[in-house]
Amino acid sequence: MSDYLYPLNDILFSLQKVANFDRLTPYVDGGLDDDLLGAILAEAGKLTEQVIAPLNWSGDQEGSRVENGNVIEAKGFKDIYRSYCEGGWGSLSGATEYGGQGLPSSIATAVNEGVQAANLAFSLCPLLSQGAIEAISSHASETLKETYLPKMLSGEWTGTMNLTEPSAGSDLAAIACKAIPDGDVYRIKGQKIFITWGDHQMSDNIIHLVLARLPDAPAGVKGISLFIVPKFILDEQANPGQRNDVQVVSVEHKMGIHASPTCVMSFGENEGAIGYLVGMENEGIKAMFTMMNNARQGVGLQGLAIAERAYQQALEYAKERKQGMKADRSGKAAIIEHPDVLRMLMTIKSQIDAMRSLIYMAAVENDLSHLAEGDAKQKAKTRTALLTPIVKGWITEQAQEITSLAIQVHGGVGFIEETGVAQHARDARILPIYEGTNGIQAIDLIGRKLLTDQGAAMADLLAEMKAEIETLVVGSTHDNALKVQQAILLAEQATASCLRSMNKDALLGTGSAYGYMMMMGSVIGGWLQVRAQMLSEKSTTLSEPQKQSWKQSADFYCDHILARAGYHAQTVIAGQASIDTLNEDSFAR
Amino acid sequence: MSDYLYPLNDILFSLQKVANFDRLTPYVDGGLDDDLLGAILAEAGKLTEQVIAPLNWSGDQEGSRVENGNVIEAKGFKDIYRSYCEGGWGSLSGATEYGGQGLPSSIATAVNEGVQAANLAFSLCPLLSQGAIEAISSHASETLKETYLPKMLSGEWTGTMNLTEPSAGSDLAAIACKAIPDGDVYRIKGQKIFITWGDHQMSDNIIHLVLARLPDAPAGVKGISLFIVPKFILDEQANPGQRNDVQVVSVEHKMGIHASPTCVMSFGENEGAIGYLVGMENEGIKAMFTMMNNARQGVGLQGLAIAERAYQQALEYAKERKQGMKADRSGKAAIIEHPDVLRMLMTIKSQIDAMRSLIYMAAVENDLSHLAEGDAKQKAKTRTALLTPIVKGWITEQAQEITSLAIQVHGGVGFIEETGVAQHARDARILPIYEGTNGIQAIDLIGRKLLTDQGAAMADLLAEMKAEIETLVVGSTHDNALKVQQAILLAEQATASCLRSMNKDALLGTGSAYGYMMMMGSVIGGWLQVRAQMLSEKSTTLSEPQKQSWKQSADFYCDHILARAGYHAQTVIAGQASIDTLNEDSFAR
Repeated sequence: MSDYLYPLNDILFSLQKVANFDRLTPYVDGGLDDDLLGAILAEAGKLTEQVIAPLNWSGDQEGSRVENGNVIEAKGFKDIYRSYCEGGWGSLSGATEYGGQGLPSSIATAVNEGVQAANLAFSLCPLLSQGAIEAISSHASETLKETYLPKMLSGEWTGTMNLTEPSAGSDLAAIACKAIPDGDVYRIKGQKIFITWGDHQMSDNIIHLVLARLPDAPAGVKGISLFIVPKFILDEQANPGQRNDVQVVSVEHKMGIHASPTCVMSFGENEGAIGYLVGMENEGIKAMFTMMNNARQGVGLQGLAIAERAYQQALEYAKERKQGMKADRSGKAAIIEHPDVLRMLMTIKSQIDAMRSLIYMAAVENDLSHLAEGDAKQKAKTRTALLTPIVKGWITEQAQEITSLAIQVHGGVGFIEETGVAQHARDARILPIYEGTNGIQAIDLIGRKLLTDQGAAMADLLAEMKAEIETLVVGSTHDNALKVQQAILLAEQATASCLRSMNKDALLGTGSAYGYMMMMGSVIGGWLQVRAQMLSEKSTTLSEPQKQSWKQSADFYCDHILARAGYHAQTVIAGQASIDTLNEDSFAR
Repeated sequence: MSDYLYPLNDILFSLQKVANFDRLTPYVDGGLDDDLLGAILAEAGKLTEQVIAPLNWSGDQEGSRVENGNVIEAKGFKDIYRSYCEGGWGSLSGATEYGGQGLPSSIATAVNEGVQAANLAFSLCPLLSQGAIEAISSHASETLKETYLPKMLSGEWTGTMNLTEPSAGSDLAAIACKAIPDGDVYRIKGQKIFITWGDHQMSDNIIHLVLARLPDAPAGVKGISLFIVPKFILDEQANPGQRNDVQVVSVEHKMGIHASPTCVMSFGENEGAIGYLVGMENEGIKAMFTMMNNARQGVGLQGLAIAERAYQQALEYAKERKQGMKADRSGKAAIIEHPDVLRMLMTIKSQIDAMRSLIYMAAVENDLSHLAEGDAKQKAKTRTALLTPIVKGWITEQAQEITSLAIQVHGGVGFIEETGVAQHARDARILPIYEGTNGIQAIDLIGRKLLTDQGAAMADLLAEMKAEIETLVVGSTHDNALKVQQAILLAEQATASCLRSMNKDALLGTGSAYGYMMMMGSVIGGWLQVRAQMLSEKSTTLSEPQKQSWKQSADFYCDHILARAGYHAQTVIAGQASIDTLNEDSFAR
């Protein structure tokens, strides 16, 4: 098993250069110091490499279990969680008035990349806490904020998201969990499934955010409210006291992320779990979307992170493993000398480079959507909303290909669990499913994001891409920029075609959604790869080999990956009819 | 977990109609009776559905283990193996003089599809035996044949293939295992890894076929010989007697096919394992290729089989699972009513249909290459050799996508192991690796198959496809045939481009091999889908819904899957340069 190395250089380049992190400077007290950013991330890198990564494999093997109604997490996880909290890594982007460090959340994104790559199963615990903190910060009363945020930011308490029920997965409108008013509080009753880190022994309390329905609530998503349901009810000193009426029923036996306990949770089997309303009654779905949008970018980041981890392992193996002869027959060749292996490795690397650029660009837009003001804020909000489903959907799809290719580079030993590379593929398989399946992401993209404004936000993005690419159809970026230019034209056609279908029939039109999302990801990736190539050439800090590597990555991407945009565009432009006619009978045999 | 249903109708249609099984009639004693074929396969279907499939999941959970030097296979496997043998399913295509049934091996292929879909891990045991039988039949002396074949055909003894060593995986030239002459026999010494079903308790003896090197053998592949090394040395009555000096060292802990013991085997730790030479000294690689070529088609079949199993489970779930509202808001919709789910299911089905057509066409060609005479034999031999790497490589790549999509259709429960669909994806992950990685297949295609004859065999195939498609650019197949016609033109260009690269540099040229293989698979799939559409329309036995289903499958394939040929062709035609410049330094960061 290879060690994980936090890719500091690449992260800094993507964040500072490609995503133009400096755009945030005006909005941060005292500005942002490049050296400080580098120092913070270098420190985060050490933690992920030395403390968190070494327990990835043991966690996979051990998993978690329920004992006497408590979930016992994998050995050593409590210690790495303590190190994580002591370093203040969970509070980077938290509000200073509650003990957070007030940094832009894109810095937390760069830290999280390392934590997730090091140990995806572990990373979900602090990640879910960050989502819960976000929802409480944005929607809860001042009293609830003061009560819960400081301990959650310090990591003494963790948070969870309780949405899914057996009959309410993608369809949140079907949520049946009940909330019965009882004086100032509510009594929560019902079962939730797929609750990530729903129970464990790493923190003093667990703050469950639960979607439930009031007795007189309207049907559908407009009748859902959000509640804080702590595992231990706070006593008068605001310390965890009496056990609330919430129990873990079981943990799932999953294909991957074994060390992340996925719990069935039962609320209110006895007197009803005490819950505190977050925001207004029947407006829970809004709060949940706040949380989910960030979580969706977070899952895209997981796709990048696990792809990076698998890549490092494949690259190291390809350099070490000898098989076959060198081209000049002078001796045994390392398999990286074989063109087909180079092809696999560059298929991985060039996509990772593009994915990372997209991730950090979207993260900076997300920061701007909170920090900027007026038009700039609105523009960033719109852009963030547009990019989020692509970040989640496209990147997690690529993560499937990449983790599978990493196995393939290993040949037979890749299939042996002890090699450790199979774990990455098993872990990655959840990513296209949770936080809204990729089908849901695609429909979000062409529905809420494209249909609602009749393509205005997308037209803005495409125009911006076009304008920038036009300036790059010169010099060493000429060839690649030309290819991206063609792809953008195709994306415009596909966008028009997609809108036509959606305007005609917003249900049938979703048949093209997946292809459209994948196409947009490929084209945006190409745009950012050419931008990265140009910026790397201009760089005064990158070495010649580093510049060459960015160029080769962009060249390969534009020849081998961007061509997929054409394929996907074709399914959008010409393939709608052969989906429209399908129904259950089409599968008769 | 859904039950497996042997897809008898589709198999018969693909084998009899699309692959034109009747071409074999002149070569089979007494001819071939359509009804008899249907009856044989229906019987095989029952065995696979009722006996073999039910132990797939329990086998995955239990796996196998080593106890006192013996491999103990999963519970119940001995019983299903006995049922399999008692039905005579292992001897269908065996020579009648040794107790076989003398049927064309494409019938065995149709039976094996069911066995593999029902229980991939189990199926590998009889499959490896069939490979061993083939190698012995083609290359061993009459005495060895008489001694070993009858018991292997009856299933009383099983067979294994011992090629791989820790330093000799894809590179068989590096084989180091020794064979020292000792009177009439040889003493075999060395370690072999990744030996499928290398030990178990289901049969009275295990006949290992082992590649090893004589003391004075030339270096490389021209110094490898093939030996029979039985687990139990036969006594004077030719019954298993004394234990040979061969031991199982351990079984691997794998990502999938848990119930198939993948063994580390040690030969000759004491006095040397007794081995009997098969064929001539130093010609073992030839014998091994006989075995491997069939095994490669066999692995392609495994890709189809596991894809079919995953498909059935996804389709059943999609019909049952309710989520979201019907289009007319009249109630809850089954998820199969959502266009994106229909897209996923038809992406699966249309590729399975194409894969099955290709499999049976290749199987019939393979039969012709043995049964026909003169030019017809040679033509079939060439065609079989050309199709084999596409069958293995393209189909097992599709199997990755299909088994992953089958998980995706399930949403969250797909990731839960008890659902059973994750097992198919884990099991399928070995297929692009074993029997020659898909990279090796691709290189075989553009090297041995394309470069050697300067594209003559491929030109024949493409001309045949073109001529047939031209006749189909009429009537209801017009649109689809037109699309395939375009794709064939592209394939011709890509073939020329690929040959140019290979003629220039046969090492660097392999950078395009994978793309070329995938392109050819997509185009051949399109050709056969249009043929199937035409044949289904003409059919007097298919129902209207069945005909409609074939049409929709072809329509969808030509719109959504065939477009991938264009993408792959583009990487072949325009993408060679961005691979040629790559080396280890390209990954600097």
